[in-house]
Amino acid sequence: MRSAAGVPDLVRQARDGSPRAVARLISMVEDVSPRLREVMAKLAPHSGNAWVIGLTGSPGVGKSTSTSALVKALRARDLRVGVLAIDPSSPFSGGALLGDRIRMQDHALDPGVYIRSMASRGHLGGLSWATPQALRVLDAAGCDVVLVETVGVGQSEVEVAGLADTTVVLLAPGMGDGIQAAKAGILEIGDVFVVNKADRDGADATVKDLRNMISLAERRQPGDWRQPVVKTVAARGEGVEELMEALDKHRAWLAESGELRRRRLRRAADEVETIAVTTLRERIGDLRHGRGLDELAERVVAGDLDPYTAADRLVDAVSSA
Amino acid sequence: MRSAAGVPDLVRQARDGSPRAVARLISMVEDVSPRLREVMAKLAPHSGNAWVIGLTGSPGVGKSTSTSALVKALRARDLRVGVLAIDPSSPFSGGALLGDRIRMQDHALDPGVYIRSMASRGHLGGLSWATPQALRVLDAAGCDVVLVETVGVGQSEVEVAGLADTTVVLLAPGMGDGIQAAKAGILEIGDVFVVNKADRDGADATVKDLRNMISLAERRQPGDWRQPVVKTVAARGEGVEELMEALDKHRAWLAESGELRRRRLRRAADEVETIAVTTLRERIGDLRHGRGLDELAERVVAGDLDPYTAADRLVDAVSSA
Repeated sequence: MRSAAGVPDLVRQARDGSPRAVARLISMVEDVSPRLREVMAKLAPHSGNAWVIGLTGSPGVGKSTSTSALVKALRARDLRVGVLAIDPSSPFSGGALLGDRIRMQDHALDPGVYIRSMASRGHLGGLSWATPQALRVLDAAGCDVVLVETVGVGQSEVEVAGLADTTVVLLAPGMGDGIQAAKAGILEIGDVFVVNKADRDGADATVKDLRNMISLAERRQPGDWRQPVVKTVAARGEGVEELMEALDKHRAWLAESGELRRRRLRRAADEVETIAVTTLRERIGDLRHGRGLDELAERVVAGDLDPYTAADRLVDAVSSA
Repeated sequence: MRSAAGVPDLVRQARDGSPRAVARLISMVEDVSPRLREVMAKLAPHSGNAWVIGLTGSPGVGKSTSTSALVKALRARDLRVGVLAIDPSSPFSGGALLGDRIRMQDHALDPGVYIRSMASRGHLGGLSWATPQALRVLDAAGCDVVLVETVGVGQSEVEVAGLADTTVVLLAPGMGDGIQAAKAGILEIGDVFVVNKADRDGADATVKDLRNMISLAERRQPGDWRQPVVKTVAARGEGVEELMEALDKHRAWLAESGELRRRRLRRAADEVETIAVTTLRERIGDLRHGRGLDELAERVVAGDLDPYTAADRLVDAVSSA
């Protein structure tokens, strides 16, 4: 039975640790619920606590396994963990566990872990629109850490870096990933690099390639972050402790350097801008369906208004809407 | 030597038939000149006379040759003709004659013909932003007919249909175009179909395929337009008279049915909307570079403003800009 709870109740339940309330709030984000505005207003005072870690990499590098290993390590510290698995290729949304999320079921019964899959190809610009708001839900619900996992395809890896405090780029030996990394601009977005499946042939060569590229690419100032490369075999838990150490160091650096605040300000500015542009586009759409734009078009066709002056009037109408 | 003429002078010179003045006005469109607004205001009272014919088709069907043959036929009627050749793949703009425009040089010395190549991949949404304004220049400069030629690749063929009063879709025998036509939705956008290079094997089969597809696709009401299929060998001028007849019939139908007015209203509405959205985006960009958005982002990060309320304030700031 679906509860008919109002937004304040849902937010209180989510903060009390109800996975069902968290699920409903994230569904409201995905469905662009008319009550989303109320949800975000109630969440705002409780946000800014979670450490957001983005994980990205090509298919097959072991992202799910690595995420699962990190969840385990974070739970050993008794931290509450949220996982957002973004599927940039799926047009379908929903909170169902995906096939490759099977390993996550290790944590399915743990009340300290909340796992959610999201499709990014939604109505309103995907990752950039819905993900920050889903992060707000998990943050306000008391997650100490939120892991955002996405396949490194096209723009999504750059987007995930824009959403995260710390971005982990995963590679695997023998996939030509080193060269791909340079091409795709992964060097710029990664705060921590992981060569997973490090028991395979070529792992050391991949690590070496990567370190070379990092030292070639960097123009470091004193106090800048030095991107580490960590070897893991996530499926056996090997190297996960070293990865956690690297992550902790990055978090400490973020706080000391002021970079955490800069990243969060940039993220908030992006989020606000995206919502504002969406609002303005919707208002123009409303005017189009109404009569406002038709009347302007008639005057343009008649030649008694030029298109710029007509656009000014449309902007004025949008502004006073 | 470049004349330092003001906008009113340029517009008057363009209307008096100066190709140089027309060229400068179209360059102002391509360069998004700050004086564009003044240009469009001066042009507005003189617009709406030109018959805009769009020509589209895959590479190799003979678009340039067909355009050239149409220019010749229109000049024989003593009509002033403008040609806009849109290159959707080129990131470069400019008024230079392209390599495949060589045939157009037949008309290069004819003062009754104005030919211009434009790149559509400009800053602001390409075809949909710059082309309507270039059309306005040619229209106000006294062109009786403007031919807009574009390669049928991706969305550009649909866009050209949105810009034209009459859309001509060109095909050639043996290119599998019939099936492509159905796939690409060309059947919906074409007012007149041309099978060019009709002296080649398979021309009749292509015509037959096309006619079949047209009769299958149509749900015609009394008074609706029946899309004709014309065979041409444009390089030898064969079939061009029949093509002109089909175009004349379509023009007459446009006027009688009220469709001309409907199409022009829709086109003006699209143009006004595009300019308005661009204006709003620029204003948001200005706020981003200024301090407005930063202050909102700080309050969002601090948790005393939710992103929707912050976006509302951004929209208000944009609206009163």
